[in-house]
Amino acid sequence: MTDPGFDDVLAAAARIAPHAHVTPVLTSRTIDALAGCDLHFKAEHLQRIGAFKFRGACNAVWSLDEDGARRGVVTHSSGNHGAALALAASNRGIACHVVVPEGAVPGKLAAIAAYGAVLHRCEPTIEAREAMCAQLQQSLGARLVHPYTDPLVIAGQGTAALELLATRALDAIVVPVGGGGLAAGTALAIAGVSPSTQLYLAEPAGAAETAASLERGARVTAFTPDTVCDGLRGTLGAINFDMLRAHGARALVVDDAATLAAMRLVWTRMKQLVEPSSAVALAAVLANPDLFAERRVGIVLSGGNVDIEAMVRA
Amino acid sequence: MTDPGFDDVLAAAARIAPHAHVTPVLTSRTIDALAGCDLHFKAEHLQRIGAFKFRGACNAVWSLDEDGARRGVVTHSSGNHGAALALAASNRGIACHVVVPEGAVPGKLAAIAAYGAVLHRCEPTIEAREAMCAQLQQSLGARLVHPYTDPLVIAGQGTAALELLATRALDAIVVPVGGGGLAAGTALAIAGVSPSTQLYLAEPAGAAETAASLERGARVTAFTPDTVCDGLRGTLGAINFDMLRAHGARALVVDDAATLAAMRLVWTRMKQLVEPSSAVALAAVLANPDLFAERRVGIVLSGGNVDIEAMVRA
Repeated sequence: MTDPGFDDVLAAAARIAPHAHVTPVLTSRTIDALAGCDLHFKAEHLQRIGAFKFRGACNAVWSLDEDGARRGVVTHSSGNHGAALALAASNRGIACHVVVPEGAVPGKLAAIAAYGAVLHRCEPTIEAREAMCAQLQQSLGARLVHPYTDPLVIAGQGTAALELLATRALDAIVVPVGGGGLAAGTALAIAGVSPSTQLYLAEPAGAAETAASLERGARVTAFTPDTVCDGLRGTLGAINFDMLRAHGARALVVDDAATLAAMRLVWTRMKQLVEPSSAVALAAVLANPDLFAERRVGIVLSGGNVDIEAMVRA
Repeated sequence: MTDPGFDDVLAAAARIAPHAHVTPVLTSRTIDALAGCDLHFKAEHLQRIGAFKFRGACNAVWSLDEDGARRGVVTHSSGNHGAALALAASNRGIACHVVVPEGAVPGKLAAIAAYGAVLHRCEPTIEAREAMCAQLQQSLGARLVHPYTDPLVIAGQGTAALELLATRALDAIVVPVGGGGLAAGTALAIAGVSPSTQLYLAEPAGAAETAASLERGARVTAFTPDTVCDGLRGTLGAINFDMLRAHGARALVVDDAATLAAMRLVWTRMKQLVEPSSAVALAAVLANPDLFAERRVGIVLSGGNVDIEAMVRA
């Protein structure tokens, strides 16, 4: 497969339209006042399965030909991508196998199983996950849908920013970055629709390899994630790094305390239940007032699958 | 003042339009499947101050003539109405005095104070609250805006159902009932727009005097509220009772455990942070499947000002 382009984002938008929600864009005058800018929140926590991940998974599943569909799909995922692929496969009526690491959020595993996918548990290392995936791929002939390096997944994730830019002019868009699927897809949408819009990547300090990679000009992969943002513990993919570097995206590093405070703001002022991995983008804006003052800023609220009890205890 | 009518709801809608939000109507296929009916959630937790109460307060404040406005407004409130009147008064630039009972939710008191109102604390009895209100009314010449018996407040609360019925045909509407302002206003909107729509009042078992009053055909006022629904501990007003009885509204009593379970459903499946007093309406639908099977049902999610920590501990 070649790198995805803006045309692939447009094709994804058409392909997922019968299945995915066009999510609303929310605003809050209270948070605008705190941030000193004009914020437009793309509400992907209201997407199906409660996260933007449904876009990419749906695009991959509905891109399969009949023969490929018959053999099903397989992935490894700490949560939202697994649920997304399971629902997309269920909608198409095909098999889905999901490799999940020990220690994943129980609520997310239950959601994956509820959509009819087969769960396969493995050690919580990238190597163990990829080995089990490869084995399932070989024995079943199933299509591997990687959570963030698959070009169809990247193109699908880009449809969130495509929708956002279709209805308002923005000076900047801030998205959370983990593996980089949403980030790379957003870069494609910006390049195609509004090249002057700046792309910022909000990243937790406990898993800030994207910031390190962009600064060094080479991908950093040796790190041990330590962050409350369970959706952002993955390692930036190679294709994602290349795309983000070529685009000129800029990383903003945020500590977990700031992310949790931003999450509370979204909960209490907007009444929207978002997960920490979503709130990191707002935290990045609040921590960098000089960058965003008086500007029109899009923020992707990436998901809402949060363990409320754990957050209240945190 | 005479009893409010449908014309007063229409006048309120025009009066509050520059200040209040037209809130969205949300749906959830997961909750529809659980309930066995077609639910339309009017998202009043996204109204200004986070509750429908802003509608009635706003209508009362902007109905004052110049002389009345100069003397300000006063009310007693356990929370949302106080915040609503404070914000409406602040928008118009007039004084607002709020009598609050000892033991009220701290977060709600902070919100009232943040809108610039003067707080006056009193004993947590209806008698103490009304006595302090009367005293402030006399000494300041301020207009008393009662949280639920004021005809302008009732007419204002009716605008939520007016908006709901303006965009979809419904077999039934379910609203929470405490003092009965929202309930009576909803009755007016239904009578004016869609008389065949049935009105159900969802009431916590620990403050079920509306159910008792409608059954007896006379208002029951002697009871000690014991419910997690802090917005529904008030006593059904006399005017509210008369209007609801004349309309033929039916009460559905729900215990707190069912309300808390319904609140969790709205949190986790809809990602909307609503307070227990909102969730009682969904709980009533889930507890009475025979009444609502296959029907198109409107539910007013009345507010989102919830103490998350307290709820997680509950």
